[in-house]
Amino acid sequence: MIIIGERINGMFKKVREAIQAKDAAFIRDLAARQVKAGAAILDINVGTASTDPESDMVWLVKTVQEAVDVPLSIDSARHEPLEAGLAAVKGKRMLNSTTGKESDLAKLLPLAKRHNASVIGLTIDEDGVPSTVDKRVEIAAKILAGAMDAGISVEDLYIDPITLPVNCAQDQPERIFAAISQFRMLSDPPPHTTIGLSNISQRLKEHQLLNRTFLIMCMAHGLDSAIADPLDEELMRSAITADLLLNRFIYADSYLEASRK
Amino acid sequence: MIIIGERINGMFKKVREAIQAKDAAFIRDLAARQVKAGAAILDINVGTASTDPESDMVWLVKTVQEAVDVPLSIDSARHEPLEAGLAAVKGKRMLNSTTGKESDLAKLLPLAKRHNASVIGLTIDEDGVPSTVDKRVEIAAKILAGAMDAGISVEDLYIDPITLPVNCAQDQPERIFAAISQFRMLSDPPPHTTIGLSNISQRLKEHQLLNRTFLIMCMAHGLDSAIADPLDEELMRSAITADLLLNRFIYADSYLEASRK
Repeated sequence: MIIIGERINGMFKKVREAIQAKDAAFIRDLAARQVKAGAAILDINVGTASTDPESDMVWLVKTVQEAVDVPLSIDSARHEPLEAGLAAVKGKRMLNSTTGKESDLAKLLPLAKRHNASVIGLTIDEDGVPSTVDKRVEIAAKILAGAMDAGISVEDLYIDPITLPVNCAQDQPERIFAAISQFRMLSDPPPHTTIGLSNISQRLKEHQLLNRTFLIMCMAHGLDSAIADPLDEELMRSAITADLLLNRFIYADSYLEASRK
Repeated sequence: MIIIGERINGMFKKVREAIQAKDAAFIRDLAARQVKAGAAILDINVGTASTDPESDMVWLVKTVQEAVDVPLSIDSARHEPLEAGLAAVKGKRMLNSTTGKESDLAKLLPLAKRHNASVIGLTIDEDGVPSTVDKRVEIAAKILAGAMDAGISVEDLYIDPITLPVNCAQDQPERIFAAISQFRMLSDPPPHTTIGLSNISQRLKEHQLLNRTFLIMCMAHGLDSAIADPLDEELMRSAITADLLLNRFIYADSYLEASRK
Protein backbone atom coordinates (compact mmCIF):
# COMPACT_ATOMS: atom_id res chain seq x y z
CA MET A 1 0.00 0.00 0.00
CA ILE A 2 1.38 3.36 -1.04
CA ILE A 3 0.46 5.86 1.66
CA ILE A 4 0.70 9.49 0.55
CA GLY A 5 1.08 11.44 3.81
CA GLU A 6 -1.61 14.13 4.04
CA ARG A 7 -0.39 16.16 6.99
CA ILE A 8 1.58 18.97 5.31
CA ASN A 9 -1.51 20.89 4.28
CA GLY A 10 -2.34 24.51 5.08
CA MET A 11 -5.92 23.54 5.88
CA PHE A 12 -4.54 22.29 9.22
CA LYS A 13 -4.22 25.25 11.58
CA LYS A 14 -0.74 24.43 12.92
CA VAL A 15 0.63 23.89 9.42
CA ARG A 16 -0.93 27.16 8.26
CA GLU A 17 0.73 28.96 11.15
CA ALA A 18 4.05 27.28 10.43
CA ILE A 19 3.86 28.39 6.79
CA GLN A 20 3.05 31.96 7.83
CA ALA A 21 5.89 32.04 10.38
CA LYS A 22 8.26 30.10 8.08
CA ASP A 23 8.79 27.66 10.97
CA ALA A 24 11.03 25.20 9.13
CA ALA A 25 11.66 23.02 12.18
CA PHE A 26 7.93 22.29 12.56
CA ILE A 27 7.56 21.31 8.88
CA ARG A 28 10.73 19.20 8.87
CA ASP A 29 9.56 17.32 11.96
CA LEU A 30 6.12 16.67 10.47
CA ALA A 31 7.73 15.39 7.27
CA ALA A 32 10.17 13.13 9.12
CA ARG A 33 7.49 11.69 11.40
CA GLN A 34 5.22 10.80 8.45
CA VAL A 35 8.01 9.04 6.58
CA LYS A 36 9.09 7.17 9.71
CA ALA A 37 5.47 6.03 10.18
CA GLY A 38 5.39 4.54 6.69
CA ALA A 39 4.43 7.28 4.20
CA ALA A 40 6.01 6.50 0.81
CA ILE A 41 5.16 9.91 -0.67
CA LEU A 42 4.36 13.22 1.07
CA ASP A 43 1.58 15.49 -0.13
CA ILE A 44 2.38 19.21 -0.04
CA ASN A 45 -0.49 21.70 -0.03
CA VAL A 46 -0.20 25.35 1.04
CA GLY A 47 -3.93 25.61 1.74
CA THR A 48 -6.36 28.25 0.59
CA ALA A 49 -5.35 30.92 3.11
CA SER A 50 -1.91 31.48 1.60
CA THR A 51 -1.42 34.99 0.19
CA ASP A 52 1.53 33.89 -1.93
CA PRO A 53 0.88 30.25 -2.82
CA GLU A 54 3.74 29.97 -5.32
CA SER A 55 6.48 31.06 -2.97
CA ASP A 56 4.89 29.24 -0.01
CA MET A 57 4.84 26.03 -2.08
CA VAL A 58 8.49 26.41 -3.05
CA TRP A 59 9.44 27.07 0.60
CA LEU A 60 7.49 23.97 1.74
CA VAL A 61 9.12 21.76 -0.88
CA LYS A 62 12.62 22.94 0.01
CA THR A 63 11.99 22.62 3.73
CA VAL A 64 10.53 19.12 3.46
CA GLN A 65 13.43 17.99 1.28
CA GLU A 66 15.87 19.09 3.98
CA ALA A 67 14.30 16.41 6.19
CA VAL A 68 13.28 13.50 3.99
CA ASP A 69 14.14 11.82 0.72
CA VAL A 70 10.78 10.58 -0.63
CA PRO A 71 8.78 11.68 -3.68
CA LEU A 72 6.59 14.74 -3.10
CA SER A 73 3.04 15.18 -4.31
CA ILE A 74 2.47 18.81 -5.27
CA ASP A 75 -1.14 19.48 -4.37
CA SER A 76 -3.00 22.55 -5.60
CA ALA A 77 -6.16 23.40 -7.49
CA ARG A 78 -4.24 26.25 -9.19
CA HIS A 79 -1.77 26.01 -12.03
CA GLU A 80 0.99 28.38 -10.82
CA PRO A 81 1.70 26.74 -7.44
CA LEU A 82 1.62 23.32 -9.15
CA GLU A 83 4.21 24.42 -11.69
CA ALA A 84 6.41 26.20 -9.13
CA GLY A 85 6.22 23.23 -6.73
CA LEU A 86 7.01 20.62 -9.38
CA ALA A 87 10.00 22.67 -10.54
CA ALA A 88 11.32 22.93 -6.97
CA VAL A 89 11.31 19.20 -6.21
CA LYS A 90 14.57 17.31 -6.44
CA GLY A 91 13.99 13.67 -7.40
CA LYS A 92 10.61 12.05 -7.95
CA ARG A 93 7.45 14.12 -7.92
CA MET A 94 3.72 13.80 -8.37
CA LEU A 95 1.11 16.24 -9.71
CA ASN A 96 -2.00 16.31 -7.49
CA SER A 97 -4.24 16.63 -9.40
CA THR A 98 -5.87 16.81 -12.79
CA THR A 99 -9.55 16.19 -13.40
CA GLY A 100 -11.04 14.70 -16.56
CA LYS A 101 -12.03 18.18 -17.82
CA GLU A 102 -10.65 18.87 -21.29
CA SER A 103 -9.09 22.13 -20.15
CA ASP A 104 -7.28 20.45 -17.23
CA LEU A 105 -6.04 17.52 -19.30
CA ALA A 106 -4.73 19.85 -22.02
CA LYS A 107 -2.77 21.94 -19.53
CA LEU A 108 -1.80 19.58 -16.73
CA LEU A 109 -0.78 16.38 -18.51
CA PRO A 110 1.94 18.19 -20.54
CA LEU A 111 3.05 19.92 -17.32
CA ALA A 112 3.40 16.53 -15.61
CA LYS A 113 5.28 15.12 -18.58
CA ARG A 114 7.71 18.08 -18.63
CA HIS A 115 8.58 17.38 -15.00
CA ASN A 116 8.53 13.58 -15.38
CA ALA A 117 5.88 13.58 -12.65
CA SER A 118 3.32 10.94 -11.80
CA VAL A 119 -0.27 12.21 -11.85
CA ILE A 120 -3.38 11.84 -9.73
CA GLY A 121 -6.46 11.95 -11.96
CA LEU A 122 -9.77 12.73 -10.28
CA THR A 123 -12.89 11.34 -11.94
CA ILE A 124 -14.57 14.73 -12.21
CA ASP A 125 -15.50 16.35 -15.49
CA GLU A 126 -17.44 19.32 -16.82
CA ASP A 127 -20.60 17.84 -15.22
CA GLY A 128 -19.07 17.63 -11.74
CA VAL A 129 -18.62 14.60 -9.47
CA PRO A 130 -20.37 11.56 -10.94
CA SER A 131 -22.66 9.48 -8.77
CA THR A 132 -22.51 6.31 -10.90
CA VAL A 133 -19.82 3.70 -11.42
CA ASP A 134 -20.11 3.88 -15.23
CA LYS A 135 -19.50 7.61 -15.38
CA ARG A 136 -16.48 7.28 -13.09
CA VAL A 137 -15.04 4.58 -15.36
CA GLU A 138 -15.77 6.68 -18.45
CA ILE A 139 -13.85 9.66 -17.02
CA ALA A 140 -11.03 7.39 -15.83
CA ALA A 141 -10.70 5.99 -19.37
CA LYS A 142 -10.52 9.53 -20.73
CA ILE A 143 -7.77 10.49 -18.28
CA LEU A 144 -5.89 7.28 -19.07
CA ALA A 145 -6.09 7.92 -22.83
CA GLY A 146 -4.98 11.51 -22.30
CA ALA A 147 -2.01 10.39 -20.21
CA MET A 148 -0.95 7.85 -22.85
CA ASP A 149 -1.18 10.56 -25.53
CA ALA A 150 0.92 12.87 -23.41
CA GLY A 151 3.59 10.19 -23.06
CA ILE A 152 2.93 9.48 -19.38
CA SER A 153 3.38 5.82 -18.42
CA VAL A 154 0.40 4.00 -16.92
CA GLU A 155 2.55 3.14 -13.89
CA ASP A 156 2.69 6.88 -13.19
CA LEU A 157 -1.07 7.36 -13.23
CA TYR A 158 -3.20 7.26 -10.04
CA ILE A 159 -6.98 7.32 -10.62
CA ASP A 160 -9.13 8.68 -7.78
CA PRO A 161 -12.88 7.86 -7.89
CA ILE A 162 -13.70 10.79 -5.51
CA THR A 163 -14.89 9.98 -2.01
CA LEU A 164 -17.75 11.90 -0.41
CA PRO A 165 -18.56 11.95 3.32
CA VAL A 166 -20.57 8.85 4.26
CA ASN A 167 -23.20 10.92 6.09
CA CYS A 168 -23.93 12.87 2.87
CA ALA A 169 -23.87 10.05 0.32
CA GLN A 170 -24.25 6.70 1.97
CA ASP A 171 -24.88 4.88 -1.32
CA GLN A 172 -21.48 5.92 -2.66
CA PRO A 173 -18.96 3.63 -0.86
CA GLU A 174 -20.20 0.52 -2.69
CA ARG A 175 -19.95 2.39 -5.99
CA ILE A 176 -16.40 3.39 -5.16
CA PHE A 177 -15.50 -0.28 -4.49
CA ALA A 178 -16.93 -1.20 -7.90
CA ALA A 179 -15.20 1.73 -9.60
CA ILE A 180 -11.81 0.74 -8.13
CA SER A 181 -12.27 -2.84 -9.40
CA GLN A 182 -13.16 -1.56 -12.86
CA PHE A 183 -10.33 1.00 -13.06
CA ARG A 184 -7.94 -1.93 -12.71
CA MET A 185 -9.37 -3.50 -15.85
CA LEU A 186 -8.78 -0.41 -18.01
CA SER A 187 -5.27 -1.45 -19.03
CA ASP A 188 -2.60 -4.06 -18.47
CA PRO A 189 -0.67 -3.18 -16.40
CA PRO A 190 -3.47 -1.27 -14.69
CA PRO A 191 -3.22 2.31 -13.46
CA HIS A 192 -2.75 2.84 -9.75
CA THR A 193 -5.88 3.71 -7.81
CA THR A 194 -5.99 6.18 -4.94
CA ILE A 195 -8.48 7.93 -2.65
CA GLY A 196 -8.51 10.99 -0.43
CA LEU A 197 -9.32 8.83 2.58
CA SER A 198 -10.32 11.40 5.18
CA ASN A 199 -13.15 12.67 2.92
CA ILE A 200 -15.23 9.64 3.95
CA SER A 201 -15.40 10.84 7.56
CA GLN A 202 -15.10 14.64 7.45
CA ARG A 203 -16.12 16.11 10.80
CA LEU A 204 -17.67 12.80 11.89
CA LYS A 205 -17.39 11.45 15.40
CA GLU A 206 -15.83 8.06 14.58
CA HIS A 207 -13.53 9.39 11.87
CA GLN A 208 -10.55 7.14 12.54
CA LEU A 209 -12.68 3.99 12.71
CA LEU A 210 -14.50 5.01 9.52
CA ASN A 211 -11.24 5.82 7.76
CA ARG A 212 -9.55 2.51 8.47
CA THR A 213 -12.67 0.44 7.76
CA PHE A 214 -13.25 2.19 4.44
CA LEU A 215 -9.57 1.88 3.51
CA ILE A 216 -9.57 -1.88 4.11
CA MET A 217 -12.78 -2.31 2.11
CA CYS A 218 -11.28 -0.37 -0.81
CA MET A 219 -8.07 -2.43 -0.54
CA ALA A 220 -10.16 -5.60 -0.77
CA HIS A 221 -11.21 -4.32 -4.20
CA GLY A 222 -7.66 -3.55 -5.31
CA LEU A 223 -6.92 -0.03 -4.08
CA ASP A 224 -3.12 0.32 -3.93
CA SER A 225 -2.67 3.89 -2.72
CA ALA A 226 -4.33 6.48 -0.50
CA ILE A 227 -3.78 10.03 0.65
CA ALA A 228 -4.08 9.50 4.38
CA ASP A 229 -2.63 10.21 7.81
CA PRO A 230 0.35 7.93 8.43
CA LEU A 231 0.45 9.14 12.04
CA ASP A 232 -2.83 7.29 12.66
CA GLU A 233 -1.16 4.16 14.01
CA GLU A 234 -4.19 1.87 13.90
CA LEU A 235 -4.81 2.90 10.28
CA MET A 236 -1.27 1.91 9.33
CA ARG A 237 -1.53 -1.42 11.20
CA SER A 238 -4.77 -2.10 9.32
CA ALA A 239 -3.26 -1.23 5.93
CA ILE A 240 -0.22 -3.43 6.53
CA THR A 241 -2.47 -6.31 7.61
CA ALA A 242 -4.65 -5.91 4.52
CA ASP A 243 -1.49 -6.00 2.37
CA LEU A 244 -0.54 -9.24 4.13
CA LEU A 245 -3.97 -10.76 3.45
CA LEU A 246 -3.62 -9.69 -0.20
CA ASN A 247 -0.38 -11.69 -0.32
CA ARG A 248 1.69 -8.59 -1.07
CA PHE A 249 4.44 -9.78 1.31
CA ILE A 250 5.23 -13.01 3.09
CA TYR A 251 3.80 -13.73 6.57
CA ALA A 252 6.05 -13.52 9.60
CA ASP A 253 4.95 -13.10 13.23
CA SER A 254 6.80 -9.78 13.16
CA TYR A 255 5.17 -8.57 9.94
CA LEU A 256 4.03 -5.27 11.46
CA GLU A 257 7.53 -4.32 12.60
CA ALA A 258 9.18 -5.74 9.48
CA SER A 259 7.01 -3.69 7.14
CA ARG A 260 8.02 -0.46 8.86
CA LYS A 261 11.68 -0.95 8.01
CA MET B 1 -23.89 -8.50 9.80
CA ILE B 2 -25.06 -11.67 11.47
CA ILE B 3 -22.50 -12.59 14.12
CA ILE B 4 -22.71 -16.19 15.29
CA GLY B 5 -21.06 -16.16 18.72
CA GLU B 6 -18.24 -18.74 18.84
CA ARG B 7 -17.42 -18.80 22.53
CA ILE B 8 -19.50 -21.74 23.79
CA ASN B 9 -17.14 -24.36 22.45
CA GLY B 10 -15.46 -27.18 24.37
CA MET B 11 -12.20 -26.47 22.58
CA PHE B 12 -11.82 -23.53 24.99
CA LYS B 13 -10.39 -24.83 28.28
CA LYS B 14 -12.77 -22.92 30.59
CA VAL B 15 -15.81 -24.02 28.62
CA ARG B 16 -14.58 -27.62 28.63
CA GLU B 17 -14.19 -27.46 32.40
CA ALA B 18 -17.64 -25.89 32.79
CA ILE B 19 -19.18 -28.69 30.71
CA GLN B 20 -17.41 -31.33 32.80
CA ALA B 21 -18.45 -29.71 36.07
CA LYS B 22 -21.95 -28.84 34.73
CA ASP B 23 -21.28 -25.24 35.79
CA ALA B 24 -24.51 -23.72 34.46
CA ALA B 25 -23.81 -20.23 35.82
CA PHE B 26 -20.59 -19.98 33.78
CA ILE B 27 -22.34 -21.06 30.56
CA ARG B 28 -25.34 -18.79 31.14
CA ASP B 29 -23.05 -15.82 31.74
CA LEU B 30 -21.03 -16.52 28.59
CA ALA B 31 -24.24 -16.80 26.56
CA ALA B 32 -25.70 -13.58 27.97
CA ARG B 33 -22.49 -11.61 27.44
CA GLN B 34 -22.24 -12.67 23.79
CA VAL B 35 -25.83 -11.68 23.05
CA LYS B 36 -25.40 -8.36 24.85
CA ALA B 37 -22.30 -7.70 22.73
CA GLY B 38 -24.26 -8.20 19.51
CA ALA B 39 -24.32 -11.92 18.65
CA ALA B 40 -27.52 -12.72 16.73
CA ILE B 41 -27.03 -16.49 16.97
CA LEU B 42 -24.95 -18.56 19.41
CA ASP B 43 -22.86 -21.51 18.27
CA ILE B 44 -22.91 -24.51 20.62
CA ASN B 45 -20.10 -27.05 20.38
CA VAL B 46 -19.22 -29.60 23.10
CA GLY B 47 -15.67 -30.02 21.78
CA THR B 48 -13.80 -33.21 21.03
CA ALA B 49 -12.92 -34.07 24.64
CA SER B 50 -16.51 -34.79 25.66
CA THR B 51 -17.09 -38.41 26.68
CA ASP B 52 -20.85 -38.09 26.18
CA PRO B 53 -21.34 -35.54 23.41
CA GLU B 54 -25.09 -36.15 23.03
CA SER B 55 -26.01 -35.46 26.62
CA ASP B 56 -23.43 -32.67 26.96
CA MET B 57 -24.96 -30.99 23.88
CA VAL B 58 -28.47 -31.24 25.30
CA TRP B 59 -27.29 -29.84 28.64
CA LEU B 60 -25.54 -26.92 26.90
CA VAL B 61 -28.62 -26.10 24.80
CA LYS B 62 -30.93 -26.14 27.83
CA THR B 63 -28.51 -24.08 29.93
CA VAL B 64 -27.96 -21.46 27.23
CA GLN B 65 -31.72 -21.15 26.65
CA GLU B 66 -32.20 -20.37 30.34
CA ALA B 67 -30.18 -17.22 29.73
CA VAL B 68 -30.90 -16.00 26.21
CA ASP B 69 -33.58 -16.07 23.55
CA VAL B 70 -31.64 -16.20 20.25
CA PRO B 71 -31.36 -18.97 17.65
CA LEU B 72 -28.74 -21.60 18.43
CA SER B 73 -26.30 -23.13 15.98
CA ILE B 74 -25.75 -26.79 16.83
CA ASP B 75 -22.14 -27.46 15.92
CA SER B 76 -20.72 -30.96 15.65
CA ALA B 77 -18.92 -33.10 13.11
CA ARG B 78 -20.96 -36.09 14.35
CA HIS B 79 -24.53 -36.96 13.53
CA GLU B 80 -25.86 -37.95 16.98
CA PRO B 81 -24.97 -34.75 18.89
CA LEU B 82 -26.32 -32.71 15.95
CA GLU B 83 -29.64 -34.53 16.08
CA ALA B 84 -29.90 -34.43 19.88
CA GLY B 85 -28.97 -30.73 19.98
CA LEU B 86 -31.42 -29.72 17.23
CA ALA B 87 -34.22 -31.59 19.02
CA ALA B 88 -33.44 -29.82 22.30
CA VAL B 89 -33.62 -26.26 20.95
CA LYS B 90 -36.79 -24.29 21.54
CA GLY B 91 -37.36 -21.76 18.74
CA LYS B 92 -35.05 -21.15 15.79
CA ARG B 93 -32.03 -23.38 15.23
CA MET B 94 -29.17 -23.91 12.82
CA LEU B 95 -27.29 -27.03 11.76
CA ASN B 96 -23.52 -26.46 11.72
CA SER B 97 -22.60 -28.04 9.40
CA THR B 98 -22.92 -30.14 6.29
CA THR B 99 -20.24 -30.46 3.66
CA GLY B 100 -20.85 -31.01 -0.05
CA LYS B 101 -20.11 -34.73 0.29
CA GLU B 102 -22.97 -36.86 -1.07
CA SER B 103 -23.18 -38.83 2.17
CA ASP B 104 -23.46 -35.67 4.29
CA LEU B 105 -26.04 -34.02 2.02
CA ALA B 106 -28.18 -37.16 1.98
CA LYS B 107 -28.22 -37.40 5.78
CA LEU B 108 -27.97 -33.85 7.05
CA LEU B 109 -30.24 -31.86 4.75
CA PRO B 110 -33.30 -34.00 5.65
CA LEU B 111 -32.30 -33.69 9.32
CA ALA B 112 -32.24 -29.88 9.00
CA LYS B 113 -35.57 -29.89 7.21
CA ARG B 114 -37.18 -32.07 9.90
CA HIS B 115 -36.15 -29.52 12.53
CA ASN B 116 -36.90 -26.50 10.32
CA ALA B 117 -33.26 -25.51 10.86
CA SER B 118 -31.08 -23.23 8.79
CA VAL B 119 -27.88 -24.89 7.55
CA ILE B 120 -24.21 -23.98 7.22
CA GLY B 121 -22.77 -25.66 4.12
CA LEU B 122 -18.99 -25.97 3.96
CA THR B 123 -17.44 -26.10 0.49
CA ILE B 124 -15.62 -29.36 1.14
CA ASP B 125 -16.28 -32.52 -0.83
CA GLU B 126 -14.86 -36.03 -1.27
CA ASP B 127 -11.62 -34.44 -2.55
CA GLY B 128 -11.15 -32.29 0.57
CA VAL B 129 -10.82 -28.50 0.87
CA PRO B 130 -10.57 -26.90 -2.59
CA SER B 131 -7.84 -24.40 -3.30
CA THR B 132 -9.55 -22.75 -6.28
CA VAL B 133 -12.50 -20.38 -6.55
CA ASP B 134 -14.19 -22.48 -9.25
CA LYS B 135 -14.20 -25.64 -7.17
CA ARG B 136 -15.64 -23.75 -4.18
CA VAL B 137 -18.42 -22.38 -6.37
CA GLU B 138 -19.08 -25.83 -7.84
CA ILE B 139 -19.50 -27.35 -4.36
CA ALA B 140 -21.62 -24.39 -3.21
CA ALA B 141 -23.94 -24.93 -6.19
CA LYS B 142 -24.23 -28.60 -5.28
CA ILE B 143 -25.14 -27.77 -1.68
CA LEU B 144 -27.64 -25.16 -2.86
CA ALA B 145 -29.30 -27.61 -5.24
CA GLY B 146 -29.43 -30.25 -2.51
CA ALA B 147 -31.01 -27.80 -0.08
CA MET B 148 -33.65 -26.80 -2.63
CA ASP B 149 -34.42 -30.48 -3.28
CA ALA B 150 -34.75 -31.07 0.46
CA GLY B 151 -37.24 -28.21 0.74
CA ILE B 152 -34.88 -25.86 2.59
CA SER B 153 -35.33 -22.20 1.66
CA VAL B 154 -32.32 -20.33 0.23
CA GLU B 155 -32.71 -17.76 3.04
CA ASP B 156 -31.89 -20.57 5.47
CA LEU B 157 -28.66 -21.57 3.73
CA TYR B 158 -25.25 -20.21 4.79
CA ILE B 159 -22.36 -21.12 2.46
CA ASP B 160 -18.86 -21.17 4.00
CA PRO B 161 -15.89 -21.09 1.57
CA ILE B 162 -13.52 -22.52 4.26
CA THR B 163 -10.83 -20.27 5.67
CA LEU B 164 -7.29 -21.53 6.27
CA PRO B 165 -4.68 -19.83 8.47
CA VAL B 166 -2.98 -17.03 6.54
CA ASN B 167 0.48 -18.25 7.49
CA CYS B 168 -0.25 -21.64 5.85
CA ALA B 169 -2.05 -20.52 2.69
CA GLN B 170 -1.41 -16.89 1.96
CA ASP B 171 -2.84 -17.09 -1.55
CA GLN B 172 -6.25 -18.12 -0.20
CA PRO B 173 -7.79 -14.90 1.20
CA GLU B 174 -8.17 -13.36 -2.27
CA ARG B 175 -9.79 -16.56 -3.50
CA ILE B 176 -12.20 -16.44 -0.58
CA PHE B 177 -13.18 -12.86 -1.49
CA ALA B 178 -13.88 -14.00 -5.06
CA ALA B 179 -15.77 -17.08 -3.87
CA ILE B 180 -18.01 -14.99 -1.60
CA SER B 181 -18.84 -12.65 -4.52
CA GLN B 182 -19.68 -15.60 -6.73
CA PHE B 183 -21.76 -17.46 -4.13
CA ARG B 184 -24.06 -14.43 -4.12
CA MET B 185 -24.71 -14.89 -7.83
CA LEU B 186 -25.84 -18.50 -7.48
CA SER B 187 -29.47 -17.61 -6.88
CA ASP B 188 -31.86 -14.70 -6.42
CA PRO B 189 -32.29 -14.11 -3.54
CA PRO B 190 -28.75 -15.30 -2.85
CA PRO B 191 -27.77 -17.70 -0.07
CA HIS B 192 -26.17 -16.21 3.01
CA THR B 193 -22.37 -16.47 3.19
CA THR B 194 -20.43 -17.14 6.35
CA ILE B 195 -16.88 -17.87 7.52
CA GLY B 196 -15.22 -19.36 10.59
CA LEU B 197 -13.33 -16.14 11.18
CA SER B 198 -10.74 -17.18 13.75
CA ASN B 199 -9.34 -19.81 11.36
CA ILE B 200 -7.52 -17.04 9.48
CA SER B 201 -5.32 -16.28 12.50
CA GLN B 202 -5.06 -19.52 14.48
CA ARG B 203 -2.24 -19.23 17.01
CA LEU B 204 -0.88 -16.11 15.30
CA LYS B 205 0.49 -13.16 17.22
CA GLU B 206 -1.78 -10.43 15.77
CA HIS B 207 -4.89 -12.59 15.74
CA GLN B 208 -7.41 -9.89 16.62
CA LEU B 209 -6.02 -7.45 14.05
CA LEU B 210 -5.96 -10.19 11.42
CA ASN B 211 -9.51 -11.26 12.29
CA ARG B 212 -11.08 -7.84 11.98
CA THR B 213 -9.13 -6.90 8.85
CA PHE B 214 -10.09 -10.14 7.12
CA LEU B 215 -13.71 -9.79 8.22
CA ILE B 216 -13.99 -6.28 6.76
CA MET B 217 -12.38 -7.40 3.49
CA CYS B 218 -14.85 -10.29 3.22
CA MET B 219 -17.73 -7.92 4.03
CA ALA B 220 -16.58 -5.64 1.20
CA HIS B 221 -17.27 -8.62 -1.08
CA GLY B 222 -20.71 -9.28 0.37
CA LEU B 223 -20.17 -11.57 3.37
CA ASP B 224 -23.22 -11.20 5.61
CA SER B 225 -22.43 -13.59 8.47
CA ALA B 226 -19.47 -14.93 10.45
CA ILE B 227 -18.80 -17.29 13.31
CA ALA B 228 -16.71 -15.02 15.48
CA ASP B 229 -16.05 -13.67 18.96
CA PRO B 230 -18.59 -10.96 19.80
CA LEU B 231 -16.62 -10.17 22.97
CA ASP B 232 -13.82 -8.79 20.77
CA GLU B 233 -15.02 -5.20 20.99
CA GLU B 234 -12.88 -3.75 18.22
CA LEU B 235 -14.07 -6.54 15.91
CA MET B 236 -17.70 -5.63 16.58
CA ARG B 237 -17.02 -1.90 16.07
CA SER B 238 -15.37 -2.75 12.74
CA ALA B 239 -18.26 -4.96 11.61
CA ILE B 240 -20.85 -2.31 12.49
CA THR B 241 -18.83 0.33 10.64
CA ALA B 242 -18.53 -1.89 7.56
CA ASP B 243 -22.31 -2.41 7.67
CA LEU B 244 -22.70 1.38 7.74
CA LEU B 245 -20.40 1.82 4.75
CA LEU B 246 -22.40 -0.87 2.92
CA ASN B 247 -25.50 1.26 3.51
CA ARG B 248 -27.17 -1.43 5.62
CA PHE B 249 -28.43 1.19 8.09
CA ILE B 250 -28.66 4.97 8.11
CA TYR B 251 -25.78 7.10 9.43
CA ALA B 252 -26.07 8.79 12.80
CA ASP B 253 -23.22 10.08 14.97
CA SER B 254 -24.30 7.52 17.54
CA TYR B 255 -24.40 4.61 15.06
CA LEU B 256 -22.16 2.38 17.20
CA GLU B 257 -24.36 2.68 20.27
CA ALA B 258 -27.59 2.57 18.25
CA SER B 259 -26.67 -0.68 16.53
CA ARG B 260 -26.12 -2.41 19.88
CA LYS B 261 -29.74 -1.89 20.93
